[in-house]
Amino acid sequence: MIKVGIIGARGYVGEELIKVLLKHPQVKISYLAAKNIDKVEPIGVLLPHLRGRLDLNCEVLDIKKAVPKADLFFLALPHTVSFSVVPMLLANNKKVIDLSADYRIEDAKIYEEWYKVKHADKSNIKKAVYGLPELYREKIKKANLIANPGCYPTAATLGITPALISGKVDTKSIIVDAKSGVTGAGRKASVDLLFTEVNEAVKAYKTNNHQHMPEIEQELSKLAGKDTKITFCPHLIPMNSGILETIYLKLKKNSTLEELTKIYERFYKNEPFVRVVKQEAMSTKNVVNTNFCDIALRLDTERKMLVVISVIDNLLKGASGQAVQNMNIMYGFPETSGLL
Amino acid sequence: MIKVGIIGARGYVGEELIKVLLKHPQVKISYLAAKNIDKVEPIGVLLPHLRGRLDLNCEVLDIKKAVPKADLFFLALPHTVSFSVVPMLLANNKKVIDLSADYRIEDAKIYEEWYKVKHADKSNIKKAVYGLPELYREKIKKANLIANPGCYPTAATLGITPALISGKVDTKSIIVDAKSGVTGAGRKASVDLLFTEVNEAVKAYKTNNHQHMPEIEQELSKLAGKDTKITFCPHLIPMNSGILETIYLKLKKNSTLEELTKIYERFYKNEPFVRVVKQEAMSTKNVVNTNFCDIALRLDTERKMLVVISVIDNLLKGASGQAVQNMNIMYGFPETSGLL
Amino acid sequence: MIKVGIIGARGYVGEELIKVLLKHPQVKISYLAAKNIDKVEPIGVLLPHLRGRLDLNCEVLDIKKAVPKADLFFLALPHTVSFSVVPMLLANNKKVIDLSADYRIEDAKIYEEWYKVKHADKSNIKKAVYGLPELYREKIKKANLIANPGCYPTAATLGITPALISGKVDTKSIIVDAKSGVTGAGRKASVDLLFTEVNEAVKAYKTNNHQHMPEIEQELSKLAGKDTKITFCPHLIPMNSGILETIYLKLKKNSTLEELTKIYERFYKNEPFVRVVKQEAMSTKNVVNTNFCDIALRLDTERKMLVVISVIDNLLKGASGQAVQNMNIMYGFPETSGLL
Amino acid sequence: MIKVGIIGARGYVGEELIKVLLKHPQVKISYLAAKNIDKVEPIGVLLPHLRGRLDLNCEVLDIKKAVPKADLFFLALPHTVSFSVVPMLLANNKKVIDLSADYRIEDAKIYEEWYKVKHADKSNIKKAVYGLPELYREKIKKANLIANPGCYPTAATLGITPALISGKVDTKSIIVDAKSGVTGAGRKASVDLLFTEVNEAVKAYKTNNHQHMPEIEQELSKLAGKDTKITFCPHLIPMNSGILETIYLKLKKNSTLEELTKIYERFYKNEPFVRVVKQEAMSTKNVVNTNFCDIALRLDTERKMLVVISVIDNLLKGASGQAVQNMNIMYGFPETSGLL
Repeated sequence: MIKVGIIGARGYVGEELIKVLLKHPQVKISYLAAKNIDKVEPIGVLLPHLRGRLDLNCEVLDIKKAVPKADLFFLALPHTVSFSVVPMLLANNKKVIDLSADYRIEDAKIYEEWYKVKHADKSNIKKAVYGLPELYREKIKKANLIANPGCYPTAATLGITPALISGKVDTKSIIVDAKSGVTGAGRKASVDLLFTEVNEAVKAYKTNNHQHMPEIEQELSKLAGKDTKITFCPHLIPMNSGILETIYLKLKKNSTLEELTKIYERFYKNEPFVRVVKQEAMSTKNVVNTNFCDIALRLDTERKMLVVISVIDNLLKGASGQAVQNMNIMYGFPETSGLL
Repeated sequence: MIKVGIIGARGYVGEELIKVLLKHPQVKISYLAAKNIDKVEPIGVLLPHLRGRLDLNCEVLDIKKAVPKADLFFLALPHTVSFSVVPMLLANNKKVIDLSADYRIEDAKIYEEWYKVKHADKSNIKKAVYGLPELYREKIKKANLIANPGCYPTAATLGITPALISGKVDTKSIIVDAKSGVTGAGRKASVDLLFTEVNEAVKAYKTNNHQHMPEIEQELSKLAGKDTKITFCPHLIPMNSGILETIYLKLKKNSTLEELTKIYERFYKNEPFVRVVKQEAMSTKNVVNTNFCDIALRLDTERKMLVVISVIDNLLKGASGQAVQNMNIMYGFPETSGLL
Repeated sequence: MIKVGIIGARGYVGEELIKVLLKHPQVKISYLAAKNIDKVEPIGVLLPHLRGRLDLNCEVLDIKKAVPKADLFFLALPHTVSFSVVPMLLANNKKVIDLSADYRIEDAKIYEEWYKVKHADKSNIKKAVYGLPELYREKIKKANLIANPGCYPTAATLGITPALISGKVDTKSIIVDAKSGVTGAGRKASVDLLFTEVNEAVKAYKTNNHQHMPEIEQELSKLAGKDTKITFCPHLIPMNSGILETIYLKLKKNSTLEELTKIYERFYKNEPFVRVVKQEAMSTKNVVNTNFCDIALRLDTERKMLVVISVIDNLLKGASGQAVQNMNIMYGFPETSGLL
Repeated sequence: MIKVGIIGARGYVGEELIKVLLKHPQVKISYLAAKNIDKVEPIGVLLPHLRGRLDLNCEVLDIKKAVPKADLFFLALPHTVSFSVVPMLLANNKKVIDLSADYRIEDAKIYEEWYKVKHADKSNIKKAVYGLPELYREKIKKANLIANPGCYPTAATLGITPALISGKVDTKSIIVDAKSGVTGAGRKASVDLLFTEVNEAVKAYKTNNHQHMPEIEQELSKLAGKDTKITFCPHLIPMNSGILETIYLKLKKNSTLEELTKIYERFYKNEPFVRVVKQEAMSTKNVVNTNFCDIALRLDTERKMLVVISVIDNLLKGASGQAVQNMNIMYGFPETSGLL
């Protein structure tokens, strides 16, 4: 039984973490904190659905007071806040799973360019392990600092990797057309995110200009062994949760659907949370409220176009579920503990 | 052809007014203004769906500059803002249709108690005519200042009036259970109104404590000829537009559904926008995007309980549509002009 | 570890049962069957989100083959189908939790009148225990056949009971205004339930004419010790899950909110799944995906009107969650097992 | 004033036609008919929102009786039904606007391959003019039979045409990723289209296998002057109306965003219903309930990738609105009549 703290307990990601960890047999939630609250309050007051399920206060974030309260800390904070929290946690031998983007980008310059802020903790970037278990499980086992992947990058990287490392993909024409639910934007007052603005509409936003783009490109470049750029077009869908990515991959030479399917099935054979599926219609409905990533392939042999459809719950495999999966790996718990 | 100005052009009510007036054959929109904008901008930039349909700037509100621009002004402003606008418009012989609550309540004390602000233009309250055409058509014809009814009060008053004035209703046990779409809350940044908070939930709010309650009670008291209180419970529904009110009326002595239906049909016989209907299921779907109010009756003779279901589009019959209907009456245009 | 079978595995209620039972530590799902399927298929094909989570076929229902497969059977079937299943299961000493209405109504004539069908297993009605743990826990412990309550009746009965048995309520004017998500209507092809018909609308349907009405009246009559009729108006809300009921109770003589709250708190003091809450806004959001019933009180002392707001997840406390709670009681498992 | 008939008045397309034509000053709706109704009924009974707005019966379709009733017939029928209607209407010198796919595909073999049915009126295919005014206005003026374009093809063809005919586009790698509201699927009872199935999910369906694909390819091939294939991936979005297409065009050699924008602006300069826009976020919200097509361009010069975002209301510019636009052109009415 380990003690875990959640810093940033009031956002959608923090809330989902609490819900997952409450069902986790090897974990006790021992500390909660939030930014932007005025005073200590029971979490059941801030998040009424937790009333009677978790009897714990949510503290005003004070990192010194936090340190002794837990063995592992999940940070579900807006970008840049982690910089003032991570160094002290690591210095006190705590393990940290950071769900922000702050330690995901290996090149601080690229981080600064896309997030338009200074990176204030460059020395710890190298210590961070990118927490995508399907690619970095061995490193995660030994990590003290996990940079938990973004939601869009999780679905994209899992969807592209097997084809990419098979060498069959033209790396110069990768396109990711992403559709996301609205929890991805967080719980912040904004006219653009009002019910009446989002409802009954689909919206293309940050076309080829979204901050998750360099994160995907970093991972694909490592896998391809060369600098790899993509076209990335996110869309906002009037639903709470779920991401569906339609990924367009040009094949260098022709292949069959059977061969490609085998490549994917083999790559994910032992993965507990990736399902290579064959059903005709691919829907976020089949993964919402789970930690699964469903992947399906469609091939147009005439045009040598492979369409990969990759689907996750943005708050689970795209954030909190994957964070718990990483925790399970770090502590040697069964990888699916609390997640099935 | 009259010239009309809309002050508060950027909110949901102002936007709907523009859409209705664009199709109105006797009207030219000659002036638009908004609060809370930094600079003059084409309305097609602020509201992109109007691009190419209305070539007009939206001004920063300056009432002195507004006066000469139109014959009639619609005010779609937050409460209390009208106080600084109406006096000057009336002094310049302009006609005004105010869609806020500022001139609806005849007793300024009640207004101040419910809206928690000072009433800053008491002298004009008496000049205002409550703009419910089905009750006050003759007064509206001669009015210079219309207090356009609230959305909940419109559906409630139309649903209750015929039974109430028939003398059959126990005035001490009137209950209005109201369900509203989210545009009723306006376009303002608020965590409670985020898509992710409103979607997939129904919420009871301001139970017996909503500021539309005294407005309904004022109208019912006048009709009943005595002080009449109600129980009023509004609910927020995850949809953009529409109000459905389920109204519970205890009958003093028994009646038949036929008799009651006749009373309603007779009362609304010549009304172009009230439909007394008999279909089994009553849905906001049948009135959304129209200026109609649909009313259906259900009677439980054993318990002497009359259930009235009253349905409107909150932005049309509940706000902008009714405002245009009032304008039509004021100017002698066909009452349905622009509205069918 | 007991073995459970689910008959009617493919509907929304059956699906939710599977999801709950997969996380239940004392239960193994050993049998699944459905009506209206042509051939045996893995449940992961019929319900793709279960792929990789439950490796079991869904059989074509054949009750003789089902009998040896489990100790306890959940029946999540359309009304009347249970009649041909329950007798054989009971005859073979199986325990049965029936989620249909078939054994809920103690007077077969009333069942036949409201459901417009013959009751074909009258002899077993008396053996059935109405599975509302908060009222009938002791009987449930010994029952072999549970008539699991309807969704609307669960929220209504829990919301009304403490006030009713306190003797303070005028039993002749109880009104239940209910708002429900669409899963309550089941997974059946019907134009009225299409996305495009339900979305962006609230609908009043079966006003004072819904088949759950006699079930509520039966339970209230037993509690009140006399024949008790209600006004019951259900509404369809564009959301998947959740029920919110606004219940209007006229008090015989005045009381205070404090006194009434104490009555409710005392009544539900030891109940693991009923929360008497005081927050201003009551939303289905706080109970969806849980087995909780949240109850809040509002009092208008002047009019002696008590408004009770009662909120549940229709598929959990209103169906599958309550069924599992009943199973836990029948088998002496911790009552919250699998449900928190 | 011409008399128009609508055959297929009860579907979403027929309903939208009625709503548009009711506001059209040069048209009188003189005939309505539907398939699959048992008996003649007032349209206000079948579609209650039309009560009091259109006093006309909806007939059981009998084409002989229909002929004398109108000058122009809109056919909003399921595929293949038009074959039994169009020949007699043309033989009687009626004008016909067919909103089905039956006369859109010039090569009957391709129609038969994709729609899996026999084409039963091949002789009239040649008479049909493809009703996309922005490409075929002159032919439409003289046509007696209009094949009204499909919803997906309208948005795609308008989005691609200017770039394609400029010669800058690699015709071998065109990708159309389409997102559509649910009215596109029609009003038919189907489990897949239930609210509870569609809501809170985005779904990829008929990936590279949708029947609108050959229609888009036909139009692009004519424009490109050579056989042109595309990748076409439609997605179902939980909203009633609207289509947003994200179109990926590889440029043969580099260009600037300014140059490309000018090409589009010039091409659509005199078009009343196409708006080339520059706002950052592109949403269906800006076109829903209008006949506009909004088009925006994004260019990644490094990768020579032009992303075109094309947005329409699937029931208006994608069906009924475009049909009325075609009617206006055929009869010499102002092209925007009834549509602004």
